[in-house]
Amino acid sequence: MKLTEIAQLVEGRLMNLLVSQTPAVEITGLASLATAQSHELSFLANRKYFHQLAQTQAAAVLISDKMVAHCSVPAIIVADPYLAYAKISHYFDHAPQPVRDIHVSAVIAEDVQLGMDVSIGAHVVIESGCILADRVVIGANSVIGAGCRIGQDSHLYPNVTLYHQVKLGERVIIHSGSVVGSDGFGFAKSKQGWQKIAQLGHVIIGNDVEIGACTSIDRGALENTEIADHVIIDNQVQIAHNVKIGRATAIAGCVGIAGSTHIGRDCTLAGAAGLAGHLRITDGVHLSMQAQVTQSIHESGSYASGTGLLPTTLWRKSVARWRHFDEWVRRVRVVTRPSE
Amino acid sequence: MKLTEIAQLVEGRLMNLLVSQTPAVEITGLASLATAQSHELSFLANRKYFHQLAQTQAAAVLISDKMVAHCSVPAIIVADPYLAYAKISHYFDHAPQPVRDIHVSAVIAEDVQLGMDVSIGAHVVIESGCILADRVVIGANSVIGAGCRIGQDSHLYPNVTLYHQVKLGERVIIHSGSVVGSDGFGFAKSKQGWQKIAQLGHVIIGNDVEIGACTSIDRGALENTEIADHVIIDNQVQIAHNVKIGRATAIAGCVGIAGSTHIGRDCTLAGAAGLAGHLRITDGVHLSMQAQVTQSIHESGSYASGTGLLPTTLWRKSVARWRHFDEWVRRVRVVTRPSE
Amino acid sequence: MKLTEIAQLVEGRLMNLLVSQTPAVEITGLASLATAQSHELSFLANRKYFHQLAQTQAAAVLISDKMVAHCSVPAIIVADPYLAYAKISHYFDHAPQPVRDIHVSAVIAEDVQLGMDVSIGAHVVIESGCILADRVVIGANSVIGAGCRIGQDSHLYPNVTLYHQVKLGERVIIHSGSVVGSDGFGFAKSKQGWQKIAQLGHVIIGNDVEIGACTSIDRGALENTEIADHVIIDNQVQIAHNVKIGRATAIAGCVGIAGSTHIGRDCTLAGAAGLAGHLRITDGVHLSMQAQVTQSIHESGSYASGTGLLPTTLWRKSVARWRHFDEWVRRVRVVTRPSE
Repeated sequence: MKLTEIAQLVEGRLMNLLVSQTPAVEITGLASLATAQSHELSFLANRKYFHQLAQTQAAAVLISDKMVAHCSVPAIIVADPYLAYAKISHYFDHAPQPVRDIHVSAVIAEDVQLGMDVSIGAHVVIESGCILADRVVIGANSVIGAGCRIGQDSHLYPNVTLYHQVKLGERVIIHSGSVVGSDGFGFAKSKQGWQKIAQLGHVIIGNDVEIGACTSIDRGALENTEIADHVIIDNQVQIAHNVKIGRATAIAGCVGIAGSTHIGRDCTLAGAAGLAGHLRITDGVHLSMQAQVTQSIHESGSYASGTGLLPTTLWRKSVARWRHFDEWVRRVRVVTRPSE
Repeated sequence: MKLTEIAQLVEGRLMNLLVSQTPAVEITGLASLATAQSHELSFLANRKYFHQLAQTQAAAVLISDKMVAHCSVPAIIVADPYLAYAKISHYFDHAPQPVRDIHVSAVIAEDVQLGMDVSIGAHVVIESGCILADRVVIGANSVIGAGCRIGQDSHLYPNVTLYHQVKLGERVIIHSGSVVGSDGFGFAKSKQGWQKIAQLGHVIIGNDVEIGACTSIDRGALENTEIADHVIIDNQVQIAHNVKIGRATAIAGCVGIAGSTHIGRDCTLAGAAGLAGHLRITDGVHLSMQAQVTQSIHESGSYASGTGLLPTTLWRKSVARWRHFDEWVRRVRVVTRPSE
Repeated sequence: MKLTEIAQLVEGRLMNLLVSQTPAVEITGLASLATAQSHELSFLANRKYFHQLAQTQAAAVLISDKMVAHCSVPAIIVADPYLAYAKISHYFDHAPQPVRDIHVSAVIAEDVQLGMDVSIGAHVVIESGCILADRVVIGANSVIGAGCRIGQDSHLYPNVTLYHQVKLGERVIIHSGSVVGSDGFGFAKSKQGWQKIAQLGHVIIGNDVEIGACTSIDRGALENTEIADHVIIDNQVQIAHNVKIGRATAIAGCVGIAGSTHIGRDCTLAGAAGLAGHLRITDGVHLSMQAQVTQSIHESGSYASGTGLLPTTLWRKSVARWRHFDEWVRRVRVVTRPSE
């Protein structure tokens, strides 16, 4: 790929070319500033890596207007270098392309409707009543339950499971090991034990949603579990029944969201955040890593939980003190009251 | 389904019928009080939704004796409306029923014993020596290791893995992506690295157990990992080797239980609770979300951990203070000693 | 297996035989001191179980020099009884051995190179360009993406997924439900939503690595995700893109490691520890259960987070106090300043 082509694709302006350089130099890959070699493109998106700019061996750097003065190699000036890198990254992706074919070993119910140019891997199972739109890819050994609808250009990697009546929008990606549409955890206590509640709802997933590996999304109990457009979900995430997630919210790895909680638009949930059930989280909330959310959040903003990290010996003392925290505070109140 | 049939099935008493209504009205589905339409059944099980009772459009409501006076639509009076809803929910479940057949693509060892009316999905693998009782369902692409025994009416969804010598009771449900019988995490430190310890125990699961999606249960090191009757386990749960879980205990999503810990009967573990290894948790313990359990619990009751949630700026200050918590308490002790 | 053979295998010294006993006694299994029967071997590796030594019915006990005086049954004296137990455990492992054959239902690309005595299970899929060394075992329904290399004696259990270009060393074990090489969670914010960043790196896993069930390891964004030799990883672990893990580090269940974090050698991460992205953790760090790691760790040692466990009523008070922790500390400072 030529440097000039890249500049065009990212709508950037090429600068800093030396007399001896040609704008048609061939770029063979992408790399960080520190590791890029003379035919690779790099980018500066984070001030933290600014110091690497001076020494970089990159053929060129995607960079903002403000930073270009410090760049000694050829530069492509763009409004958002990270976004430009994201866009251009796909041109250097050598992942094998799925064959647009239906593998002979796939077991597909007779009434399944398949769009044009679909790719169905080996040992895939697609049950009755499913509709797959154009260019859908189903990876090997995946199972699609009865009555699912999968929008165009969606890509399920190998070993994914969809239960019955799951609806995926367009350009949805689901990584391996993930499960969508399993029964919600609904039981009523009886004398004999737990009486299972049939989970009658479905799962509805919008357009441009990505779901990571080993993630589970349960079907609704009465209503549906709903994931809006542009939501991105990482690996090992648990989304319980009746949860609703608003547009463009990002959910990092190991997050757990309990039943019937609704999360707004444009939220970011950092790794291992936990949300209790039946909560309402408004738009634009950021939850830090391991956040412990037991109540609804009505104001946008950033929230956090936890004690941070201590050397274990000191931690042990602190935990012993925590057992009497309420008592210590009462004592403080007594001695400080006069000064209030 | 007629309203009168429903009343019979839940052993309820039909009331509040208007003159114009017939007790044989056809009920087409279940819904919450807020969303139910005129041919749907609803229920009032939680005081939180009491205010929805006045406006509900439901054809009828499952309700307790005490609440019926406030109900303006037809009512079915039952002792436990939530339990009645749980029981009746299965009559409205339109999930596709598995075909009582063995798919031609399944690979089943010659000596496997299959009961009556079993359902074996496409691409299933069942290894030597397995015994499946009547009406067992094995979903597509699941793998059953050698020597497993699966009790009658058990249902494994697609893409489940059982290792060798796993024993499941009757009416056990295992959702997709889950793994039972994998090696426990047992290693001895050696000069070269970690010497693996062969995991010689099995996994024994009782009757009426449900296991969610993407959950893992390891086999024992020397003894067995054991899950008693009526235990219910949600998604993304980790149960390590030699763990024993008592009757009717409920384990919510993302819980992790380390090796050799024993949990009593009738416990409830909320989401993401973590239990260290070699602990004893007595009967009737409730652990809150993200509970940090590092010691055995000998008294029934409710336990919790964590700091709750704060705005991040305030949280940062608190965490900085926590680093010196022990010191602050010492200071408090000095100034409050005289008043003790 | 004869007792004398065992003594030889663990390089131990046989002692305490009664006149009536023969060193050639047949040992039929391994068991704990408390449960061992008269033809079983046991071991004493933990002082906690010392009291069981007097009553044990074991045929013999693996024990250290120091403890042998308290042992009333035959003993095999070894330097490290736990390590000796680990080594000998494999001789009592009755797990079914995989057939050294390629199942007829496996779908293997024509150009795949297979070593000697490989075992490829039913419904396995192996894509173009893969190289599997001698004695590799691939469990049923596993999928191996294009261009993977798997070193000799590695064992993938059923329902494992490797994406393209994953490299495994020798003697690597991967348990069921796990996924290696899925896309890292990389996106740039755009006006329309999240722009996906192609994940161009690979995953490189060293020799003698074990990976548990339902664990996910993402491929790198630009560089590779790397797991060094002798690393052991438990179930339900999340390892994000660009993470590097040093030699012989042990990672317990439910741990989450965010992107680009590097962990040193000989670390131990207890269950559900969480590490933020872009951190550097030096060699020999121990993280306690649920540790909250938001900053790099430059000194070896043991670190911990969390509040421990309280009865829920007391916990609620403590959490209410925590909301004003900074304020309480300020008050303490005022009243204690004079005494400083």
